Amino acid sequence: MFTRLFTRPSIRRLLVAGSFFLAAAVPASAQSDPLPSWNDGPTKTSILDFVAKVTKEGGPDFVAPEKRIATFDNDGTLWAEQPLYFQLIYALEEVKRLAPQHPEWAKKEPFQSVLAGDMKKVMASGKKGLEEIVAISHSGMTTDAFNKTVADWLATARHPTKKVPYTQMVYQPQLELLAYLRATGFKTFIASGGGVEFMRVFAESSYGIPPEQVVGSSGVVKFQKGDDGKPELVKEMKIDFIDDGPGKPVGINRFIGRRPIFAFGNSDGDQQMLEWTMAGEGPRFAALVHHTDAVREWAYDRKSLIGKLDKAWDEAAAKGWTIVDMKSDWKVIFPPAN
Amino acid sequence: MFTRLFTRPSIRRLLVAGSFFLAAAVPASAQSDPLPSWNDGPTKTSILDFVAKVTKEGGPDFVAPEKRIATFDNDGTLWAEQPLYFQLIYALEEVKRLAPQHPEWAKKEPFQSVLAGDMKKVMASGKKGLEEIVAISHSGMTTDAFNKTVADWLATARHPTKKVPYTQMVYQPQLELLAYLRATGFKTFIASGGGVEFMRVFAESSYGIPPEQVVGSSGVVKFQKGDDGKPELVKEMKIDFIDDGPGKPVGINRFIGRRPIFAFGNSDGDQQMLEWTMAGEGPRFAALVHHTDAVREWAYDRKSLIGKLDKAWDEAAAKGWTIVDMKSDWKVIFPPAN
Repeated sequence: MFTRLFTRPSIRRLLVAGSFFLAAAVPASAQSDPLPSWNDGPTKTSILDFVAKVTKEGGPDFVAPEKRIATFDNDGTLWAEQPLYFQLIYALEEVKRLAPQHPEWAKKEPFQSVLAGDMKKVMASGKKGLEEIVAISHSGMTTDAFNKTVADWLATARHPTKKVPYTQMVYQPQLELLAYLRATGFKTFIASGGGVEFMRVFAESSYGIPPEQVVGSSGVVKFQKGDDGKPELVKEMKIDFIDDGPGKPVGINRFIGRRPIFAFGNSDGDQQMLEWTMAGEGPRFAALVHHTDAVREWAYDRKSLIGKLDKAWDEAAAKGWTIVDMKSDWKVIFPPAN
Repeated sequence: MFTRLFTRPSIRRLLVAGSFFLAAAVPASAQSDPLPSWNDGPTKTSILDFVAKVTKEGGPDFVAPEKRIATFDNDGTLWAEQPLYFQLIYALEEVKRLAPQHPEWAKKEPFQSVLAGDMKKVMASGKKGLEEIVAISHSGMTTDAFNKTVADWLATARHPTKKVPYTQMVYQPQLELLAYLRATGFKTFIASGGGVEFMRVFAESSYGIPPEQVVGSSGVVKFQKGDDGKPELVKEMKIDFIDDGPGKPVGINRFIGRRPIFAFGNSDGDQQMLEWTMAGEGPRFAALVHHTDAVREWAYDRKSLIGKLDKAWDEAAAKGWTIVDMKSDWKVIFPPAN
């Protein structure tokens, strides 16, 4: 009887509506766990307590839904970033894919070393060399063509050591956190040093974050009419905006136009975003992912070339921001394979 | 009895839910008019028909809700723009307000002419002079301070001839259209040549468009620590991006990352936004407001210094885009005074 009652569609609808209401109104302990991949402890509690207080209508810390802006870094915060930012791996693999059309690369650095698979020499080409590699794979085409090339790559490429698609290397606990924030009235944004157009290709299907809620670095884009008279947007070989470090609050201000009340990062490039978030009035939350799990993911911080966590870590400790210890706070890292 | 029944809260809720469902699912003729300030005729029909077909589930022209992106120009499309863009009036009035702190302006153009109220000489100072006026009133302060100054001005300033607050000079038919689009699953954006930070101050309360859905021109903004060590964003005296003409598709691509299926403008500065919108696949809608009502608003087009409508008008006529004749298509122009 009990079961039959609960399978009646109208009652089920009521329960769904009711559970949403509960999620917004009562502490997590009184309901099913919204963050099942987070181990119980102070980190998880800091998140649940913050959401409970800002969503408690009539409470001293209540924040109106339209002001519940949450921003997340991407590389190292929502998905992995080792051994290299995945967008950089994309750029390197594009050089290989395009090589037959560029015979001159056989004798031209840094392309020669990319084609020879000599990553040491590629990295030795420095910022200038890496920028050339990124430029060649991110410009001289329409935005539509770029989106398609990235989508094709994501569908077929595999991570060099984990041997899974890159979109399988998103963090399950963060997917739950994003969904939990949205269920409690937050609007979730990405604010990343990564390329905005690169991230938009997968942000909606991977994170439930639509293109218009992705803030990132960008190149100059030009409007022009193609040979057929059809208007098109062409990506040019020139950096427009770097959404990293002090650029993050600038990018957030430009794209979102409101100060977040909740921000999540993992490296020194996120420090100013967290500072900007915490400097506003009313209740605020800042957190950093500390990569401590060499077995299930990677362990790195102060001395890492990718995702260096040094100054921001010191500031987080001094100011009492939440620090996620990946090894002990996350029950699982990646989502179960499809 | 009938009245008592309809005042029961549960029934009222049901009716609200039901009317929303109807708005999305059946043609407008079968329900109460969602656009009461639009006169019946081909213009209104073109809007209703477009919305009906893209929201008809299972129909050949159905568009998934997340792709229902609508972009509106602001000046001359959502609110008036005569005798000068209101943001330019703000800048001129700021020069007057700040004059006591700048005794040197008494002998320095274009400020001298602004203070003397000699608009002919101000306009004769050309682009350079106007840029100086805008720069002085839009930089050298934090974003928070700018927002407050604009909000204070909007609360107290009056239009020179209409003698009403500028926020009373929004177009009632467009407010209804924005609400109608949102009720049928569209996400509504502003894409305007105006300053993004200026518009964000009133876009939410006036149009129901939140800051993160406003695309516009911007100056360079810098992150820094104030004297008290508190992080702040400071507006610098340098143009970052002009969201006008060919800049509109670029700005839409940068901020939204999707091509609109519905776009509304009123001048040549909107031409490329409409071209970009119409060049996508599937059903698309483009419209221009033609200012034809010298009695209730203003009448201007090909020869106007502000809001010139010339080339875009020819293209609209050639391509069959919707042209709103303000005088005959709009039953009322401005909302009833509070």
